[in-house]
Amino acid sequence: MAAPGRDALSDAEEGAAFQPKFGPDGLATCVAIDAERGDVLMVAHMNEAALQATLATRVVHYWSRSRGALWRKGDTSGQTQRLVEMRVDCDQDAFLAFVEVGGDGGACHTGRRSCFYRRVEADGAGARLAFIEAKKTQS
Amino acid sequence: MAAPGRDALSDAEEGAAFQPKFGPDGLATCVAIDAERGDVLMVAHMNEAALQATLATRVVHYWSRSRGALWRKGDTSGQTQRLVEMRVDCDQDAFLAFVEVGGDGGACHTGRRSCFYRRVEADGAGARLAFIEAKKTQS
Repeated sequence: MAAPGRDALSDAEEGAAFQPKFGPDGLATCVAIDAERGDVLMVAHMNEAALQATLATRVVHYWSRSRGALWRKGDTSGQTQRLVEMRVDCDQDAFLAFVEVGGDGGACHTGRRSCFYRRVEADGAGARLAFIEAKKTQS
Repeated sequence: MAAPGRDALSDAEEGAAFQPKFGPDGLATCVAIDAERGDVLMVAHMNEAALQATLATRVVHYWSRSRGALWRKGDTSGQTQRLVEMRVDCDQDAFLAFVEVGGDGGACHTGRRSCFYRRVEADGAGARLAFIEAKKTQS
């Protein structure tokens, strides 16, 4: 007979029950992906309330660590994210949110589509950043 | 004159200096992406040593929270990840690693290509999981 610990692990990994796990800080990582283009827009965090609000309303909510508050993405920026599909990983402590972006189509507070607008270039002399997407000019 | 805090923030977001930020636990989130297909394989963590080893060797290293040890991905599974490109987000506390997967092409310890093999299906009655990728049968 397998140990109870092993059963619980297998159930979390191979079962159909949604049992999201949050860390000691009450948070889990959520990666937002452009549902149309398939690329990563941002990495953020959800607590249980943000996850439940996202699933219930299909409008993506995060937990803002800097503000210490529930954050319905787009409330101030207009850059809303409508949930198209949510996925969970093997041990149920990370999520992918496939989203449709509202507003001006951006996800990053710098005005860009994606927060990942720089590539890390490393060699023996160290590492520096190269821009993939320039700063959006003010209209 | 802008406050020093604002200058530092702008430099981290708009500069070319690589200044990775790690949390109170010494870790930052890294999302591994299949460089060829463009989809997310896994979400894991890096400490500074894992990040530096990854950039220096182009073989992806993580920090295993369960084992409390530096983890060169693939050492036991054969599922190595060769770094093709690394990106960093606006506040430099999350990374994307575009990788070529070795071994049998899997990234997940369950034997699957991606750790995100289940979709969350939610309605008024609650949430459950639907499998996108079945469990790999033993050969």
